[in-house]
Amino acid sequence: MNAIGVFDSGVGGLTVLDALVRAFPQENFVYLADTARLPYGSKTIDTIHNYLKQNVAFLERQQVKAVVVACNSASTALLQFGDSFSLPVFNVIEPGARVAVAHSQSQRIGVLGTRATVLSQAYPQAIHRLNPKAVVSQVPAPLLVPLVEEGWLDDPITNLIVYRYLSTVLPEQPDTLILGCTHYPALRQAIARACPPSLTLIDSTTGLIEDLKNAYDSGALAEPRKAHGFVRILCTDLSPRLQDLAELLLKSATPEGFEQVDI
Amino acid sequence: MNAIGVFDSGVGGLTVLDALVRAFPQENFVYLADTARLPYGSKTIDTIHNYLKQNVAFLERQQVKAVVVACNSASTALLQFGDSFSLPVFNVIEPGARVAVAHSQSQRIGVLGTRATVLSQAYPQAIHRLNPKAVVSQVPAPLLVPLVEEGWLDDPITNLIVYRYLSTVLPEQPDTLILGCTHYPALRQAIARACPPSLTLIDSTTGLIEDLKNAYDSGALAEPRKAHGFVRILCTDLSPRLQDLAELLLKSATPEGFEQVDI
Repeated sequence: MNAIGVFDSGVGGLTVLDALVRAFPQENFVYLADTARLPYGSKTIDTIHNYLKQNVAFLERQQVKAVVVACNSASTALLQFGDSFSLPVFNVIEPGARVAVAHSQSQRIGVLGTRATVLSQAYPQAIHRLNPKAVVSQVPAPLLVPLVEEGWLDDPITNLIVYRYLSTVLPEQPDTLILGCTHYPALRQAIARACPPSLTLIDSTTGLIEDLKNAYDSGALAEPRKAHGFVRILCTDLSPRLQDLAELLLKSATPEGFEQVDI
Repeated sequence: MNAIGVFDSGVGGLTVLDALVRAFPQENFVYLADTARLPYGSKTIDTIHNYLKQNVAFLERQQVKAVVVACNSASTALLQFGDSFSLPVFNVIEPGARVAVAHSQSQRIGVLGTRATVLSQAYPQAIHRLNPKAVVSQVPAPLLVPLVEEGWLDDPITNLIVYRYLSTVLPEQPDTLILGCTHYPALRQAIARACPPSLTLIDSTTGLIEDLKNAYDSGALAEPRKAHGFVRILCTDLSPRLQDLAELLLKSATPEGFEQVDI
């Protein structure tokens, strides 16, 4: 079908999908939300690795030309196990790390992530490959995903929880903070409120779009031919709530519909 | 193996297991935590029903003599689909509803539950089978499970979230509040702080223990023979964090160990 497959454990990756549709409006996308097994970030790296392999294999059976792992926890497993696949597979850890290192003046970089992502040390490793002297401080923030799923985006309780998590990172005086989970851009305003104005928030999408552009340019990824692409959304557990959250998070894409699938 | 199988999506059901070990110290228990797919309460009833059937079948293969569904969301699916199994299967919805109706003076009963449990109407239906005139007010409280998993049991942020959820139920002036998820007894103190002192908190365990006693007495369940039973814990995703939380929640039981299994 000549589309790009994008997957996440749930709705968080829709923030990535939305940015990709805006950047490449002529491309086709098939988005897989593994909602029957979400969240990933609280599970062990071995279990997340199993889910990653199953999801990539499923998307290959949908005959996509590439897969974007739009889930930081699953990207972590991809980097840690170093799997090779028969099609291009993009992660969201390395592009975020690259943009953060390129942007940071002080090379003091903070990371907010799920427990799995933080435990794996994927961000510190990716950052230190680019600059071994960078100082990375990270904190697991497990409640942020359920807060987004609950829809408490602009809420004093959310502000308190964000402030609590950041209070372990901000004393390290980072000038750049990586939003290391695809749910977190939905909390960008709450996170920005708790940070000094000089601190820059980085999500994965800018760097990921650069990676895809490079892949088109080098011929590693076939360019779309049509004037206007489609977006299909597949999920392993289909609830009305998923559709509501998708409407909240998708600004640029209008999906053709939602379909429940078995993996 | 002549044990009772107990399952939950995660660690919450350990509060039930703990009460069962205290009530029946000579019994053997096999506890299954489906940690690779937790939580259940945010998923659709069809997906939860699939997990329920798979978990019961798995425990049957472990040759247990009965299964306790120590997860309110899965108990909800059991009642809604009315499955029949080749061994006794106990749910945690009906015993809680029975104890609440027996206790309440005003027959105004509140229910705090997961989204799946509340949407299913399982508690109002179980209560109305006992007293059609009872007034039931319920609220989904999705953030309470992640708060327990995060270990924020005695915390001002937890108090605020509990207060927010209860503020939709307390104006209905219940004299009895059902803790409709196995995680919630871990938040009993925070919940009690937000309630008037005249309100009684009911969890599933008292009624469930009555159900098991009746099953022993009627011969539906074979009595254990030994002086002292064992407790085995199986899980679908084994993390050090699971073992830490199990230690926090298990007061009366000392498990023989933790074992990862595929379902």
